[in-house]
Amino acid sequence: MTDATWHGGAAAVATLTFDVDAETPILASGRAYAGHLMTMSHQAYGPDIGVPRILELLADLGVPATFFVPGWVAEHRPGLAATIVEHGHEVAHHSYSHRAPTAMNAVEERADFERALEVFDAQGIEIKGHRAALWEATQTTLDLVASHGLTYDSSLMGDDRPYVLGVDGRPVVELPVHWSLDDWEQYAFLPSPQIGSVIESPRKVLEMWRAELDAMRHYRCLFNLCLHPFLSGRPSRLMALRELIESAQSYGDVHFTRCRDLADATHADPTLEHRDPPTVTADPAVYPD
Amino acid sequence: MTDATWHGGAAAVATLTFDVDAETPILASGRAYAGHLMTMSHQAYGPDIGVPRILELLADLGVPATFFVPGWVAEHRPGLAATIVEHGHEVAHHSYSHRAPTAMNAVEERADFERALEVFDAQGIEIKGHRAALWEATQTTLDLVASHGLTYDSSLMGDDRPYVLGVDGRPVVELPVHWSLDDWEQYAFLPSPQIGSVIESPRKVLEMWRAELDAMRHYRCLFNLCLHPFLSGRPSRLMALRELIESAQSYGDVHFTRCRDLADATHADPTLEHRDPPTVTADPAVYPD
Amino acid sequence: MTDATWHGGAAAVATLTFDVDAETPILASGRAYAGHLMTMSHQAYGPDIGVPRILELLADLGVPATFFVPGWVAEHRPGLAATIVEHGHEVAHHSYSHRAPTAMNAVEERADFERALEVFDAQGIEIKGHRAALWEATQTTLDLVASHGLTYDSSLMGDDRPYVLGVDGRPVVELPVHWSLDDWEQYAFLPSPQIGSVIESPRKVLEMWRAELDAMRHYRCLFNLCLHPFLSGRPSRLMALRELIESAQSYGDVHFTRCRDLADATHADPTLEHRDPPTVTADPAVYPD
Amino acid sequence: MTDATWHGGAAAVATLTFDVDAETPILASGRAYAGHLMTMSHQAYGPDIGVPRILELLADLGVPATFFVPGWVAEHRPGLAATIVEHGHEVAHHSYSHRAPTAMNAVEERADFERALEVFDAQGIEIKGHRAALWEATQTTLDLVASHGLTYDSSLMGDDRPYVLGVDGRPVVELPVHWSLDDWEQYAFLPSPQIGSVIESPRKVLEMWRAELDAMRHYRCLFNLCLHPFLSGRPSRLMALRELIESAQSYGDVHFTRCRDLADATHADPTLEHRDPPTVTADPAVYPD
Repeated sequence: MTDATWHGGAAAVATLTFDVDAETPILASGRAYAGHLMTMSHQAYGPDIGVPRILELLADLGVPATFFVPGWVAEHRPGLAATIVEHGHEVAHHSYSHRAPTAMNAVEERADFERALEVFDAQGIEIKGHRAALWEATQTTLDLVASHGLTYDSSLMGDDRPYVLGVDGRPVVELPVHWSLDDWEQYAFLPSPQIGSVIESPRKVLEMWRAELDAMRHYRCLFNLCLHPFLSGRPSRLMALRELIESAQSYGDVHFTRCRDLADATHADPTLEHRDPPTVTADPAVYPD
Repeated sequence: MTDATWHGGAAAVATLTFDVDAETPILASGRAYAGHLMTMSHQAYGPDIGVPRILELLADLGVPATFFVPGWVAEHRPGLAATIVEHGHEVAHHSYSHRAPTAMNAVEERADFERALEVFDAQGIEIKGHRAALWEATQTTLDLVASHGLTYDSSLMGDDRPYVLGVDGRPVVELPVHWSLDDWEQYAFLPSPQIGSVIESPRKVLEMWRAELDAMRHYRCLFNLCLHPFLSGRPSRLMALRELIESAQSYGDVHFTRCRDLADATHADPTLEHRDPPTVTADPAVYPD
Repeated sequence: MTDATWHGGAAAVATLTFDVDAETPILASGRAYAGHLMTMSHQAYGPDIGVPRILELLADLGVPATFFVPGWVAEHRPGLAATIVEHGHEVAHHSYSHRAPTAMNAVEERADFERALEVFDAQGIEIKGHRAALWEATQTTLDLVASHGLTYDSSLMGDDRPYVLGVDGRPVVELPVHWSLDDWEQYAFLPSPQIGSVIESPRKVLEMWRAELDAMRHYRCLFNLCLHPFLSGRPSRLMALRELIESAQSYGDVHFTRCRDLADATHADPTLEHRDPPTVTADPAVYPD
Repeated sequence: MTDATWHGGAAAVATLTFDVDAETPILASGRAYAGHLMTMSHQAYGPDIGVPRILELLADLGVPATFFVPGWVAEHRPGLAATIVEHGHEVAHHSYSHRAPTAMNAVEERADFERALEVFDAQGIEIKGHRAALWEATQTTLDLVASHGLTYDSSLMGDDRPYVLGVDGRPVVELPVHWSLDDWEQYAFLPSPQIGSVIESPRKVLEMWRAELDAMRHYRCLFNLCLHPFLSGRPSRLMALRELIESAQSYGDVHFTRCRDLADATHADPTLEHRDPPTVTADPAVYPD
């Protein structure tokens, strides 16, 4: 890695990403939840209250971010994607319906993937990258990303630095994620559907993420933070996010960037060889269904 | 929001609310629990030991509060609601049986809702607002609140400031709640029925709620704290609550009020437009049952 | 409570109780676990390694304690109960098999209860009190406690001070417990059978229990701590327990006692009226099965 | 224990163990997960990214360790075991497939056990000890360990010091483990298959493990730490591990060793009597299936 160029000399690169899921993960658990008013309002808080505050916070601190938006959400809130782009941030593909690719067959997944592209195309939003719903990518997912000419995916966990996957001979940059840099595990609570059961203090979360950023500067990693406006848009969580970004800025060696720009830098890095996607062949005699 | 008047100039408004559920959430999980003595005594601790201590604490600190009481509880402990009112606090509607509206049909929900009103009416307790059992409101819930002339509901999560819902042309103030300002997620533990599985330290809870209050002063929000006497009535949790209130009082810019009074101030706020209830139409082709 | 005498003038009374369950809670989940060596050894650690260390710690600090022992455990480890008594502590009844009373009918519960009494009788161990397995007492449990002349039960949660139950006209002292003063919720982890899923730091547990003891001194309560040797017998957890006891001793106003002695003091307290056991009558039309 | 020699005079002995499970625990939950790319990449991170960093860290600090590797993993990553040995560490037996012995019959378990031995034999890796998958050892497991001439097992929890099991007259050293010294309970999170649901801060974990090490020096124990490269290989967790080892080194009385060397010292300790494996006979009349 000595000669790698993707990081542009920074000790760590930080991509702030916001998955604007709104109602979609709940509806994917069962259409009947559409009539559960508390649950729907819990999710609507994300785009309605959380996103404006997040845009204000990012503007305040002068950092760019990437918003992964399901097509269904962009369609049901027509101005949302455009507003994000107008603020200088990236809008990226996060499926149409937020159903997990691993729960769909290839035909269903293709239809869902392409329907989202049509929504963004109709709104004039340029899409360069993709994140699978629930991060549950399949080989079909990567094929769709590559065949539609997107430059990156951000769903896998095979490293904590960007890497290049060879997908049918086409390079797809992977900007890896991880559960420990996601707000869902720390903040999500909803009993029905059950999407989480513990609510941590923003103080604990800030301490943990700051420690990871510090350590990532040691190992020269990608700090790819995944936040959800319906969770991190709450007041004290926003304050913790502000503190985290200010810490990173004070270090002087952390580079904030949009995913698409990091993907471009990674594609241009001559030191990175193509890796195979992480599928595994398992013997049915050893591992039954 | 610049000209909003609901907050009366305070940086944040605080409504301390106590859901006096007693045995009802357990019985709603199965009538057989009535013979489980430990479980019943666990719940009875709330009104029997917790409520008197809470009333003493509130008197000590001079702050008003709102007690959401299921009709069944008021009926089975005849002096309870009157005692709360005599202390200067509000008693509000919290269903009759604590069964979730989303688990009842409209006829059942109406019967349950109106039976509670009859209990309070017979006890001479004036009811102005409502909170759904488990916060699981439906469109029927809002219709019942509006048609019975209540001024507010406190079950939804679409904002962290009061807002006005248009329900069949009638305004209903929503005083939004959130999981992160509820003691259940922090303190509830019971294996059978399973109502929670982690017991946090009051120190962590105090730190988290204090951080949220601080941040809410920044965003000028409603700090709508939801506590349960069978949980927060325990000694060290009461001490943490005392510290929290004293902190808020020391800031000088936090206004404590009853829900009904805040609802009145919100109805009178000329800057708030009516919002639609948060129901969603979901396409069965995208989101199956 | 002004004239109450059960506390003997102490600000708080502390009963250290150890439930020496050994293999019984696991076997009650399924007999097949008998062949799961890790699981059996996990439980055997309690009496084999934990109890001797606990006895040494208590001797060191000069505090008495109460050990609730299932009859099956006393039977399978013949010297165990006698050793505890020889150290000046109390051995009390904790069922024979550690099956929950709420999962047995009255005939089964009686047989289980009396079989334990026979074991202790054969070993010359005098029994004065009882704690239900899993704290899951029924009306039958209280009837058995009263009719066999035991002076107290320690399974319910209706207060945080001792109280007297009237059981068919006979007084039974209840020494109430609570989930927040139990080590199981903080330390237990076992996936199969699933008996817990989070492992907390002894530092957090010490901080939480110390806060509860402090607050209980304010409210003049019973600090009835429930520990399990297979959990709290681990080195750093023992160290935290030592710190907790030393804190309590340093206050000068906390009285450590055995449950039977506290039960006697409670029976002799003229200010305590008999309360009814906490069963509840629930209308099937309101609360279905 | 006064004359025991297994510890060689150290206050505590520390064995750092790494279970290099890679994809096997997931595949054992269902072969279909082989096509879940995120999940496979989550597991592959362990040997691909975590192990090289761990080897570097151990070299840096000059401490030896033991790597428990499933045969399937050694087979699918041909250079892995040899690299570990070349760094001066031990490779030990961790089943072939990572299926739990308690979920296999004796014939299946024997086949799985011996297949792993064949893999290591073909790679020229000398095997001296064994750890059961999920620690779920059976009597068959111990028989296999003894009959294949391995010197130790590390799956049980009957003590926190090494002990000697008599298995058909053959001595097998047990190096006991415990949930509280395992990173899985602190860091593992994966919803499908569900392998964990809470992500703790490395700060909490470091504090807890350091407290246990401190207390184990008091009780002269074995600090047998069980780590997983796919979990503890993440940057801030590695940093916490580094701090923990440095603390232990600074004490001056903690001895780091490989499991096989500790097993030899334990076999040579004349003070240790053979214990029986912890199986239990349970009466079906008391404990039904």
